[in-house]
Amino acid sequence: MGSALVVVGASVALGQARGKAEDGLLAADVAWEKVYSAKDLPKAVAFCDEHGTMSVPDAPVVTGTEALAKAIASDFAQGDTTWRPNKVGVAFSGELGYTSGTTDLTFKDKSGKTLTKKGNYLTVWKKDAVGSWKVLFDSFNYE
Amino acid sequence: MGSALVVVGASVALGQARGKAEDGLLAADVAWEKVYSAKDLPKAVAFCDEHGTMSVPDAPVVTGTEALAKAIASDFAQGDTTWRPNKVGVAFSGELGYTSGTTDLTFKDKSGKTLTKKGNYLTVWKKDAVGSWKVLFDSFNYE
Repeated sequence: MGSALVVVGASVALGQARGKAEDGLLAADVAWEKVYSAKDLPKAVAFCDEHGTMSVPDAPVVTGTEALAKAIASDFAQGDTTWRPNKVGVAFSGELGYTSGTTDLTFKDKSGKTLTKKGNYLTVWKKDAVGSWKVLFDSFNYE
Repeated sequence: MGSALVVVGASVALGQARGKAEDGLLAADVAWEKVYSAKDLPKAVAFCDEHGTMSVPDAPVVTGTEALAKAIASDFAQGDTTWRPNKVGVAFSGELGYTSGTTDLTFKDKSGKTLTKKGNYLTVWKKDAVGSWKVLFDSFNYE
């Protein structure tokens, strides 16, 4: 997150509109992580576009609110997911953007031992009709 | 690719600028796949933004032309990669977009047996100064 904050901070200091847009998208990414890591299923799903897609390792891609809710619930049951954005970009038109960063999945193996898998994510976001950022496509892999 | 072509076809039939933009980005994705699957290293690297990033399973994220060239060369040595886009989106401003789809990596295991791993990819693209689409962030995982 350090480098993203530096970038956003520099842009905001220059008073650039793009810096504000990126700041807003970064805040959405952080807000999604907050409800996701707290395993708040309704709020986590509400961050996703109704036609949004998730692609996780070792599973088929899922699309749409109902399938996303099942996939996120399954992820919550599997362990604890956290992430930290380190890149953000927003189109000049302001309605499409992306974030990327690192993710940790902490879970217990069959013997009850706690393990952490590190990964990297890439998320494409679009603004909905009222100007809130929604997840259009979320993808990650394990490093 | 079927659904993407339907979407693009419908948009182009309506004479919408967005349909043309998405058609152009889809063509860039297909053109990149052509040189990538042919293992043409200079042309495959030339599709990437100079600050572009690649995130592949079981490896750290790499950023920048030199690191991307090494990663792509390593991928070429590992096996044969092909992909087919099935989603495309472009911002209203036309300089940022994404493609996603399915990917196959075909390789020989230690015993010499040919195996294929299926995966899913998400790529964020930006237009360069002369209007060519370049890969800003490419990520995939195995299904």
